[in-house]
Amino acid sequence: MSLIVAKFGGTSVADVERIERAADKIRREVELGNKVVVVVSAMSGVTNTLVGYCDEISKLQDLREYDTVVSAGEQITAGLMSMALQKRGVSARSWMGWQIPFITNEMHGKARITDIDTTEINKRLAENEVAVIPGFQGVTPRNRISTLGRGGSDTSAVAMAAALEADRCDIYTDVDGVYTTDPRIVPQARKIDKISFEEMMELASLGAKVLQTRSVEIAMKKGVALQVLSSFEDHIGSDLPGTLIVKEDKDMEEELVSGIACARNEAKITLIGVEDQPGIASKLFAPLANAGIGVDMIVQNISHDGKATDMTFTVARADKERAIQTLENADVSCKEIRAADNVAKISVVGVGMISHSGVASKMFDTLAEKNINIQVISTSEIKISVLIEEDYAELAVRALHAAYGLEEPA
Amino acid sequence: MSLIVAKFGGTSVADVERIERAADKIRREVELGNKVVVVVSAMSGVTNTLVGYCDEISKLQDLREYDTVVSAGEQITAGLMSMALQKRGVSARSWMGWQIPFITNEMHGKARITDIDTTEINKRLAENEVAVIPGFQGVTPRNRISTLGRGGSDTSAVAMAAALEADRCDIYTDVDGVYTTDPRIVPQARKIDKISFEEMMELASLGAKVLQTRSVEIAMKKGVALQVLSSFEDHIGSDLPGTLIVKEDKDMEEELVSGIACARNEAKITLIGVEDQPGIASKLFAPLANAGIGVDMIVQNISHDGKATDMTFTVARADKERAIQTLENADVSCKEIRAADNVAKISVVGVGMISHSGVASKMFDTLAEKNINIQVISTSEIKISVLIEEDYAELAVRALHAAYGLEEPA
Repeated sequence: MSLIVAKFGGTSVADVERIERAADKIRREVELGNKVVVVVSAMSGVTNTLVGYCDEISKLQDLREYDTVVSAGEQITAGLMSMALQKRGVSARSWMGWQIPFITNEMHGKARITDIDTTEINKRLAENEVAVIPGFQGVTPRNRISTLGRGGSDTSAVAMAAALEADRCDIYTDVDGVYTTDPRIVPQARKIDKISFEEMMELASLGAKVLQTRSVEIAMKKGVALQVLSSFEDHIGSDLPGTLIVKEDKDMEEELVSGIACARNEAKITLIGVEDQPGIASKLFAPLANAGIGVDMIVQNISHDGKATDMTFTVARADKERAIQTLENADVSCKEIRAADNVAKISVVGVGMISHSGVASKMFDTLAEKNINIQVISTSEIKISVLIEEDYAELAVRALHAAYGLEEPA
Repeated sequence: MSLIVAKFGGTSVADVERIERAADKIRREVELGNKVVVVVSAMSGVTNTLVGYCDEISKLQDLREYDTVVSAGEQITAGLMSMALQKRGVSARSWMGWQIPFITNEMHGKARITDIDTTEINKRLAENEVAVIPGFQGVTPRNRISTLGRGGSDTSAVAMAAALEADRCDIYTDVDGVYTTDPRIVPQARKIDKISFEEMMELASLGAKVLQTRSVEIAMKKGVALQVLSSFEDHIGSDLPGTLIVKEDKDMEEELVSGIACARNEAKITLIGVEDQPGIASKLFAPLANAGIGVDMIVQNISHDGKATDMTFTVARADKERAIQTLENADVSCKEIRAADNVAKISVVGVGMISHSGVASKMFDTLAEKNINIQVISTSEIKISVLIEEDYAELAVRALHAAYGLEEPA
């Protein structure tokens, strides 16, 4: 007998028929003797409609009212899911954020979870009642409805699993797991059975948008075993058909490289001839941070003459113009600002790679063989990322996927 | 300075544009120095959609979950209305049923209000903040969301006005007041400026579906001055452009008859040759009451031979078949059960009429002149109702409207 948190995303509860199909899966988990907490998103499209109403009234909304409006989507699904479970003879009830209570801070619109009171739900779980919880929503100490930001239902599920010390948190979605790379680029991409939190975080932030990055962070911190699986196939979470995201373990070391990620939503900005003096990086990046612009890869070449250097970094493509403006107004002198958005970031991700120098050189060799020029390189403990011209992105992914032997065995 | 509760029905908040128009009216009330509580319905169509989802899953729903689902409609409008007010520089916040708290009993789906805690809202009203309240919803002592039944937003508004001892409760809707009869039947029908609670209750229950009957009952009991007015014209409640529903006063006695109502949703059932013995009415009507079938007009003719009598009554047309079945299974012997639904109930309503015998005879004379046969007659303190063949309904309404001189002065 296990305690399982099962989360269904918007496409998995898009209409009543799909809610019923999801309820069938939960019934099967319960029949195996498991205790289950279900976390549901809004039916797909509902949140966008509600956000649209808010934006139509004002772009400068009172976020407390925004949260009151948009949280209604998950509330609706939670009630419907409870009904669908009861129809199947499964004892169930819905719990709104304020009924649990699922407490957050007062950062409305993107609140952080501060405390989840599991007393009542634990009592009901002990009586074999399934708890159905609207994802994305909480309640503040002032008794107002809060939301965790877009995609927050993953976070709700993981936080709930952590608070309840659940055995597993199943994320039912429209893909059947995490792949060695994007199957639309490489048809031979292989589903990964098991991956570490760290690798998943890199893959998530690098374009494999299966899970909200924040939910993986919390799972890693709290040690919640996560599984990503498809809600459209005939399996349930306890069959372990998806990708398990767990703490690094022995098994994993055998595979140095777990996946190849590709992100096309970045732009490259280069400052030519920046004064090379202490504090220059801070002068450059503090204004960007203040403007809410996240900076990703940063490369500073060594100074040619001890006076001026070139600095390159990437930002989200949508932030490019704003970043240039911010830099033009910043207290930094440089000869020229160059920007380009025809770039792609290709990353090789794997837990064991840092201690194997061969991994990096294989990446560079493979790209060189294909005559793909590397513009920027950045590395971390578990990944090597390179920026290349966007036109070569698919070629690079295919070549690297083959070079590291990640294909599905024929 | 007055304290006003203003309620907007579904068509008055059907989309963002209409919500904005409603917010304009509230802004004008606030600019006059009034304190305002706004009660909102769900955007039109939303409640039907949500009820549809519930019914699609199961007709035998857990009504606690049903309430959780359907209450979301009003929650959405409340948040949007608060935003629209804030955009106009009007300080406002939404209050969900559980935040107020607006406490009801546990009869989910059609809960009764037991207590409204006005402490917090009163504090905010004193600070000139507008309170926006989702109609229809409350919270039970077990902290579950409850709803007051379809049309319950009128009841929410009136109960809120009573609890706050408001000066007036304005019901903004898609008609501009209560009319002497249905203007679709009689184009000369006149808008009534002022009407008593009792008359309004008769008119409401007799087919002039402007207000939920229960809301008028509460207003009468608690002495809440009600106004029905159109949200689609350029006036606000404080201009008093609609129909005021108030306690009977001197002014009213001048007009004996205030309106003519017509209801076509009833069916007539006649039991021929019922044993005439004590307790027979109870034996007949108790099973109907137990089956949840409301009985309206009841006529029992005197017994011809002291042994058997004929009994006629009306039920809602939708209940006709069920009523016949119930009677067939009841412990009552009769020769025959006859039923007909080609009937219409025409009623003359007016506070002063009981003491003026001329009112009834004028009704009978007028119908006789038009050769309209009266099947059943029933009277109360403030109304006379007759059942006639449905085909003659419009003719009867027009003739009576003219006979009592209710036309708009030319």
